[in-house]
Amino acid sequence: MSLLSKTLESIHPADRSLEAAVQAHLNDLTKPQGSLGRLEEIALRYCLAAGTARPKPVKARLYTFAGDHGVAAEGVSAYPKEVTPQMVFNMLAGGAAVNVFARHVGAELFVVDMGVDAELPDHPGLLKRKIRRGTGNIAREPAMTVDEATRALEAGIALANDASVQGVTLLGTGDMGIANTTPSTALLAAYLKCRPERITGRGTGVDDAGLGRKIAAIKAALKTNRKSLGDPLQTLAALGGFEIAGIGGLILGAAARKIPVAVDGFISTAGAVAAMHLCPAVADYLFFSHLSEERGHRVVLGALNTRPLLDLGMRLGEGTGAALAMSAISAAVKMCNEMATFSSAGVSTKE
Amino acid sequence: MSLLSKTLESIHPADRSLEAAVQAHLNDLTKPQGSLGRLEEIALRYCLAAGTARPKPVKARLYTFAGDHGVAAEGVSAYPKEVTPQMVFNMLAGGAAVNVFARHVGAELFVVDMGVDAELPDHPGLLKRKIRRGTGNIAREPAMTVDEATRALEAGIALANDASVQGVTLLGTGDMGIANTTPSTALLAAYLKCRPERITGRGTGVDDAGLGRKIAAIKAALKTNRKSLGDPLQTLAALGGFEIAGIGGLILGAAARKIPVAVDGFISTAGAVAAMHLCPAVADYLFFSHLSEERGHRVVLGALNTRPLLDLGMRLGEGTGAALAMSAISAAVKMCNEMATFSSAGVSTKE
Repeated sequence: MSLLSKTLESIHPADRSLEAAVQAHLNDLTKPQGSLGRLEEIALRYCLAAGTARPKPVKARLYTFAGDHGVAAEGVSAYPKEVTPQMVFNMLAGGAAVNVFARHVGAELFVVDMGVDAELPDHPGLLKRKIRRGTGNIAREPAMTVDEATRALEAGIALANDASVQGVTLLGTGDMGIANTTPSTALLAAYLKCRPERITGRGTGVDDAGLGRKIAAIKAALKTNRKSLGDPLQTLAALGGFEIAGIGGLILGAAARKIPVAVDGFISTAGAVAAMHLCPAVADYLFFSHLSEERGHRVVLGALNTRPLLDLGMRLGEGTGAALAMSAISAAVKMCNEMATFSSAGVSTKE
Repeated sequence: MSLLSKTLESIHPADRSLEAAVQAHLNDLTKPQGSLGRLEEIALRYCLAAGTARPKPVKARLYTFAGDHGVAAEGVSAYPKEVTPQMVFNMLAGGAAVNVFARHVGAELFVVDMGVDAELPDHPGLLKRKIRRGTGNIAREPAMTVDEATRALEAGIALANDASVQGVTLLGTGDMGIANTTPSTALLAAYLKCRPERITGRGTGVDDAGLGRKIAAIKAALKTNRKSLGDPLQTLAALGGFEIAGIGGLILGAAARKIPVAVDGFISTAGAVAAMHLCPAVADYLFFSHLSEERGHRVVLGALNTRPLLDLGMRLGEGTGAALAMSAISAAVKMCNEMATFSSAGVSTKE
């Protein structure tokens, strides 16, 4: 059996039988019940995902998946496509925003080359998983073959498995890929059956003409690839990207290993939605980190009936939102593990 | 001249002449302009407050001010008043939520006894600044004399001065005091001219009858102390609390020393509003950390025309919201200091 099939079969919904025990513990901590609000929700969700009422100390790791996109040729991005490898070099040198935030929150960071259209050097922070140098132009052809999409998913799954073996307890996703809001929007439109106009935003900052080209490219992509859109894997192959599939694979692998995942912004959400269409049970393992300023994110999170942890007006990607959310998730886990209880601290309860 | 008068005279608005230089630097960092959203706003505000375009690495300290309240006798809290010293002991033992979060974000934490109705032991984490064992019952009398309120403010100012000398670059506020949402609400009603019904919430969780008693106590306090409400200092003395005045003093002292302050939730906001009425220029030095679930907080922050950094449904106080916000502020400062620029990293700019 393939790694993808095996992984899909080993994902189960989180264990709700623990809920009463976890909630009772949270209620016994020295604070009015519920007064830590979403931190308590996070702790409960984390414990159910990890399958324990007493989670281990958090060991956090963030993977930033990078890839290029044939659709960049349609003029859908404000930046030239050589920025993808340039930003990978910036990340390897430690100077990108995601480096700063990952260091700040104490998360390990790896950059994963899933399909950058450049030869990249060996570097301890770079994991070479290149499927191909850039996808096909989705406005005219499929992004990937189904075999390529499967291999990209499996690369992500394997990273989650490595992380599990290495004691990682919390994963985060990130992306780097010029033009990648275009395939992400196309995927979300296809999976969630949204009109492209409703969820297409300005990405890194295209002008009105660029936004028009972007919507046209997405519509063309949905039309050109329409025969593939009945099946989740074929949809991912037709409209996705190597880094988006890597993110989806990481999420599948993490769910199979019961590792919660902080999903970054718009692109990572597309990867998560792909994973959720391949296996709905992964939803129990996901924390949507923040509300991106990218136009469609609010609509998409609404369609998923989920509320992101943070709302800081960010729209950078890379894993920057996931890094900040991982700190909040760690705080919730420490609350669960390190706070005194009313009885242990000799504090009087409610009158 | 008194420490209070001297401090009020040495507070000046933040230096806006730096704005163009700071903004130019933020725009040159390797990200689309503005794509880190509120983190960029935080960085700008922090730099202007600190008076430098290149801020020092953050050294964060949180002071949790504790005090008791005569108005607890009116049955306005869900918890008995012995919980104030019990929670101080819990904090000194490291088991309260604020301990967990302060450790998590790397902030020093001190508990300040401003007016707890108990004798507290010597402890390296406890700063003894007790003015009196609990305030007067504001429903029947002034909380403090003007002299007591002045001494409480000056205790807070002195802590900011100590912090400045010790190299602290970012301060946070917190509170512990059973019944203290009642004087906080009374203060906010008086300063901001809000009807008590509109901003009175359930604090640690009173039932409907308790909420009714609370509103009645606040109305009685505003009536009993009406002759004091024309002057900001007399208002604070009449309706406040020792810990609330301590928070206000810390904010005044911090602004005088150009140290930005993360203001916690509802009670800390009352202290901040007192400080803003004593000296409007302090506003430039404040970050409102989070939107408290306490009912009036949204109204009050709206009246102040400010948007909090986080919205996590928290209503615990202690400085828990400030601690989490201090991490976001630190991330913004690191972004400013540690990210590469387009030219230094050799990344192409927008087409």
